[in-house]
Amino acid sequence: MTELSDVYIVGAGETKFGELWERSLRELAVEAGLRAVENAGVYSRDVQVLYGSNSLAGIINGQENIGALLSDFSGIAENNIPAIRIEASTASGGAAVRQAYLAVKSGEYDLVMVGGVEKMTDVFGTELIDLTSSVLDREWEAFFGATPAALAAISARKYMADFNVEKDALAMMSVNDHANASKNPDAQYKNKITLEQALNSVAVAEPLNMMDCSPVGDGAAAVLVASENYVKKHKLEGVKILSSADAQDYLALHSRKSLYTLDSAKVASRKALEGAKIKIDDVSFAEIHDSYSIYGLMELEDLGFAQKGKAKDLVYEDIKLNGRIPINPSGGLKAKGNPLGATGVGQFVEAYRQLKGKAGERQVKDSKYAMLHNMGGTGSMSVVHIVGGE
Amino acid sequence: MTELSDVYIVGAGETKFGELWERSLRELAVEAGLRAVENAGVYSRDVQVLYGSNSLAGIINGQENIGALLSDFSGIAENNIPAIRIEASTASGGAAVRQAYLAVKSGEYDLVMVGGVEKMTDVFGTELIDLTSSVLDREWEAFFGATPAALAAISARKYMADFNVEKDALAMMSVNDHANASKNPDAQYKNKITLEQALNSVAVAEPLNMMDCSPVGDGAAAVLVASENYVKKHKLEGVKILSSADAQDYLALHSRKSLYTLDSAKVASRKALEGAKIKIDDVSFAEIHDSYSIYGLMELEDLGFAQKGKAKDLVYEDIKLNGRIPINPSGGLKAKGNPLGATGVGQFVEAYRQLKGKAGERQVKDSKYAMLHNMGGTGSMSVVHIVGGE
Repeated sequence: MTELSDVYIVGAGETKFGELWERSLRELAVEAGLRAVENAGVYSRDVQVLYGSNSLAGIINGQENIGALLSDFSGIAENNIPAIRIEASTASGGAAVRQAYLAVKSGEYDLVMVGGVEKMTDVFGTELIDLTSSVLDREWEAFFGATPAALAAISARKYMADFNVEKDALAMMSVNDHANASKNPDAQYKNKITLEQALNSVAVAEPLNMMDCSPVGDGAAAVLVASENYVKKHKLEGVKILSSADAQDYLALHSRKSLYTLDSAKVASRKALEGAKIKIDDVSFAEIHDSYSIYGLMELEDLGFAQKGKAKDLVYEDIKLNGRIPINPSGGLKAKGNPLGATGVGQFVEAYRQLKGKAGERQVKDSKYAMLHNMGGTGSMSVVHIVGGE
Repeated sequence: MTELSDVYIVGAGETKFGELWERSLRELAVEAGLRAVENAGVYSRDVQVLYGSNSLAGIINGQENIGALLSDFSGIAENNIPAIRIEASTASGGAAVRQAYLAVKSGEYDLVMVGGVEKMTDVFGTELIDLTSSVLDREWEAFFGATPAALAAISARKYMADFNVEKDALAMMSVNDHANASKNPDAQYKNKITLEQALNSVAVAEPLNMMDCSPVGDGAAAVLVASENYVKKHKLEGVKILSSADAQDYLALHSRKSLYTLDSAKVASRKALEGAKIKIDDVSFAEIHDSYSIYGLMELEDLGFAQKGKAKDLVYEDIKLNGRIPINPSGGLKAKGNPLGATGVGQFVEAYRQLKGKAGERQVKDSKYAMLHNMGGTGSMSVVHIVGGE
C-alpha cells in the first residue's frame, strides 16, 4: 500500500522571451533548466526524468527527438536519465506538466524536470505561417488556406455580431497584457500600449490586427515538479499543484458545436476546479491562453469567469493587476510572448513566482489560488491546472 | 490510501505495415484503434485518455498536433477525451506505452489507448533521408551529412573489426526476420531470404546493404492499457505489464563512450528485469529494435542475451522461432516493417498475440515472458518492457 503523493513545484526558471537571433534551441532550453535547478536549490543529478515540451522544432529547426537533445545538453544523459517530448501543439507545455504530475503520482518518480522550448525566428513570412498551420487540420483546414489568425478572425466576427461586442473589448485584452508585461523583465514586449494604438495597428485578418495577435518569438521555461516525500526530505517550500485536468475538442474549427465556445476549456476548467475543491470565485488570478485577443474573451467565459458574451464587462477594469480577477499578470501571450512549447511552462513560472510573493512590481496581492490555462491550436485541447492554496 | 494498480494490456490491433499509398495518416490510426477496441471487447467510450506515438508527421505530412487529430477522428473528442502525442523519435511507441503505464499507476485512469502511426511514403529519396535525419543531432551530425544508415555503418565497421565478426552474422539477423515475417499477415515483406541474397543486395552504407536496413513504410498499431480494477470489473483476460523502464544516452553517436555499446539498452534492460523480478534467461522471446542488422547484434549483447562481441554465436540457430531465445517472432523491423511511430506499439501487439497463444504459424511455444525493446535514433533512448508472467 502506497499513498498517492501530493505534487509540488519546487523551482522555476525561464529565459527572456523574444527574438533571440543569436541563441539556439538547445542553448535556450539548457538556460531555463539550469535556472530552475538553481532556483529550487536541488542537485540536477536528483532529476529522474525530463518531459520536454515543444511544438514545431521538427519543421522549423529540422530537429525532432527533442527529449534526447534536452537530456544530452542539460547533462542528465550522462546518468542515463530519460527524456520524453510531449507535443500537444500550443498546449504542449501544460500537457508536459500534466505528464510530470501523473509521473509523480504514479509513485515512480520523486523529482521531474519539465522544460519547454521553442525557436521560431529561424523562419519568417509565409513559410512560418504555413509551418504554424501544421497545428490545424492540415488536410481540411490548412490545405485550403486557413491559418491560425484567419480562424481566430472567423470566431471573432461571429462572436462580435452575436453578442454586440465592439472591437474595443478585444483590444483591451492586449492593452492589459502590455501593461502587465511592462513590469516583467522576461517579457518580449515591455511597452505599454493605449487602446487607440491597439485599435489602429495594421490589419492581420480582419477584425484582428497586429495588436490582437501574439508575436512570433523564441524562449524556454522550466519547472521542477516533486513528490511530497522529496519536498519534506529536502525541506523545500514548494507550491502545490492542487489539480490538473485536460480536455479535447474536435481538431477543425468547422467541426465544433460553436464558433466561439471552447468546450475543451469548459470541461478542463470544471474538472480542475472540482479537483482542487474550489469555486471559480476563489481563483486569485489566472494566466490564460490569449494567443489572439478574441480567445482571451472566449476563455474568460468558458473557464467560468463570465457568462457567454459578457467578458466585455471584465476587460476594462476587472482583469487589471489590481482588479477583481487579475488576468495574465505575466503579460500573457500577447506581450510576455508565445514561444509555443515554452508558453504553457512559462505560465507555471509566473504562478510560482506570484505565489511565492516574488513577482516584483507585478505582484498580485494576497493571491492564494492560480488558474493556468494552456490551449492547443484553435481550441482542440485545453489543459487547466490550479496551483497554490497553502 | 490507494494501492498502486497493476497494469494490463487488454486489447491490441494493427494495420498491415507496408507501402500503403492509398491510406492517410488518420485513416491508418483509426483502423488500428478500432481493431484494438474490437479485440478487447470494451466500449470505446470507456477510453479516458489517448497517447499518440508519432515521430515525423510534422515534417513528412505537415501535420503536428497529432493527439488532437487522433482524438477527433477516432471519435473520442466528442466526449472531450484528451489525447497527447509522445515523441521520442523511433522509440516513441515504447515511450507512449510507458506514459500509459504511468497514467494508470497514477490512479487517474482505468483505461488508456495507445496509438502509434507513421505515414512515410509520401516523400522519398534524399528528401526522406534528410527528414529521417532529424532524429539525429541536426547541428552536429545531420548538418555534416551523417544519416541514420551512415552512423549504423560506422558502428558496424568498428564492431566487426574489434570482434572479428564476419558480415554473415549481421545478415543472419535479416534472414531470421524475413523467415518470421513470412508467417505474419501484417508484415511488410513476407518473402523469405537466403543468406546469399542478404549478402548480395545493393550497398547502402558499407558494410551495410539493403538487406541490413529496415524499410520505409506506413502503418499503425494500437493497444489498450487498463488498471487491475477495470480488468476485474469487466472480466477481461489481460496480459500484465510486469515492468517498464527507459534510459537515455547521448544524442550524437560521437559523444557515446563506445561506438558499439548501447548504454541506453543496458540500463533499461537491467531496470526492466529488476522490475519484473526475473532474469534474462527467463525471457521466452524478445522483440528488439533492429532498424539496422548491426543494432540487432549490439542489442542482443546490451540487453543481456550475450556477452559483448558474442552475439554472432546466437544468430545462426538460437534466435530462430523454435530456437533457444526466439528474436522478433513478428518479423522485426527489417521484415515486419518500421513505420516509426507504430513500431514500438506494434511490438506490444505481437507480444499480446503471442502470450495469448494467438500468433498462428509463428507462435512461440510455452512463452511466458516477453521482452520488448524500442530504441530512439542510433541509441539515444531505449525503452524496455517485460510483459506476461501469468
